[in-house]
Amino acid sequence: MTEANLQAGERLDGLPSQQVNVIQNPDMFSYSLDAVLLAHFAKPNKKGRGVTVDLGAGTGAVGLFYAKKVTGRVMLVEIQADLAKMAERSVKLNQLDDRVSVIHSDMQEVFDQIKPGSVDTVLCNPPYFQVKETTKQNQDEHYQIARHEVAIDLPKLAQTANKLLKNKGKFFMVHRPERLADIFAALTARGLEVKHIQFVYGKADREANMVLVEAIKQGRAGGVRVLPPIIAYTAANDYTKQVEKILYGQPWTIE
Amino acid sequence: MTEANLQAGERLDGLPSQQVNVIQNPDMFSYSLDAVLLAHFAKPNKKGRGVTVDLGAGTGAVGLFYAKKVTGRVMLVEIQADLAKMAERSVKLNQLDDRVSVIHSDMQEVFDQIKPGSVDTVLCNPPYFQVKETTKQNQDEHYQIARHEVAIDLPKLAQTANKLLKNKGKFFMVHRPERLADIFAALTARGLEVKHIQFVYGKADREANMVLVEAIKQGRAGGVRVLPPIIAYTAANDYTKQVEKILYGQPWTIE
Repeated sequence: MTEANLQAGERLDGLPSQQVNVIQNPDMFSYSLDAVLLAHFAKPNKKGRGVTVDLGAGTGAVGLFYAKKVTGRVMLVEIQADLAKMAERSVKLNQLDDRVSVIHSDMQEVFDQIKPGSVDTVLCNPPYFQVKETTKQNQDEHYQIARHEVAIDLPKLAQTANKLLKNKGKFFMVHRPERLADIFAALTARGLEVKHIQFVYGKADREANMVLVEAIKQGRAGGVRVLPPIIAYTAANDYTKQVEKILYGQPWTIE
Repeated sequence: MTEANLQAGERLDGLPSQQVNVIQNPDMFSYSLDAVLLAHFAKPNKKGRGVTVDLGAGTGAVGLFYAKKVTGRVMLVEIQADLAKMAERSVKLNQLDDRVSVIHSDMQEVFDQIKPGSVDTVLCNPPYFQVKETTKQNQDEHYQIARHEVAIDLPKLAQTANKLLKNKGKFFMVHRPERLADIFAALTARGLEVKHIQFVYGKADREANMVLVEAIKQGRAGGVRVLPPIIAYTAANDYTKQVEKILYGQPWTIE
């Protein structure tokens, strides 16, 4: 691993299990457990070959974590120039620039650079919150775009993913459980059939605060499987063994 | 509790926590954990007052378990004559005939007996399986109707529940997770907004095998909450404390 050359305000956040470091700037937007669990949840096909696109890549966390478990190409698409640049530096830092690239683009206009119907796997950790009149406007723009459906919403995201994917290509997303009805509606409307769902509960006695979704382009309708629960923290506020293993255990293997 | 007067082939299955006994006939159709968890999951409104309808009541398990935590009227609607008769005997056996009644009817034709828009709460433990050409036809008719969407399917059920309910009335259902996409589609199409979902996992490391759903007629769209996981069995195949309490603990209270 080469030196990070961190700039003012930046820090290096590592994921020990995957031996990846990501340049972050807490003033802009930092990845969290969501990104790790999405990258872990996403299942490579073709034994790790094939093309993967991370839509709304931010600082590149999801795509970089995932890149370590595949051998194929990974393209990180990010609309915000400064985040895209940070992601690019993280790619080099992790010496993954032979097969991981960053595209600075609105995901809806990426089709000049990524051919429709050419992608095996699409990953996305999208903005979670709907834009409403009551949305607080005093947030930093980076956070606004990363957290609120300003630049992309669920129907447009589903449309973009569907356009990029080959038939039977897979779409993996992390989102909030409160958007579950919207998620089903948006994916189904765009021919992305939900096949697997996994809920992440903060603690064993808490409501789910994340949902991981796998959908297949032109998959057979019906037959959703709800995978075993992920409990993030113990009653004593430590990571559970289940999550500790994902964060600090052996590198993730392709099952 | 009066004497059961069991007929040939019948047995009495009790739910100790609710002090209810249900006459069952294993040759026909018997309730299982699904019914108990649905009755437990359903939340009475108006401090237990109001009208509740159990659609597709079978031997009456759901409605009888639920009746013990409310003070209002409960109507059990069952299409199969012999199951409806058994339910009627169970109502008397539990001395609930002052406010629990059985209606032998197709739920889609029950509106002569239950006025549209008059119901506060609808409960349903519907048939789980879609009717396909590959469906085995060698099952007993009682099982067919109880398990397969022969007499009622999700869209018709949602339509019936919606027609019975008052505005803001609640619909509670237990189903299989694999039908999740269909559940969202059917309920949303009929103006029943999903507000709470709870998954039941056979064991902590198993996929969910049941889903409990609460929807509100003309509820605000969005905002699904996924309640803490229910784990049914320990690794040693005993009921977890969580489920043991529901089955054998104190009578359920209205929260």
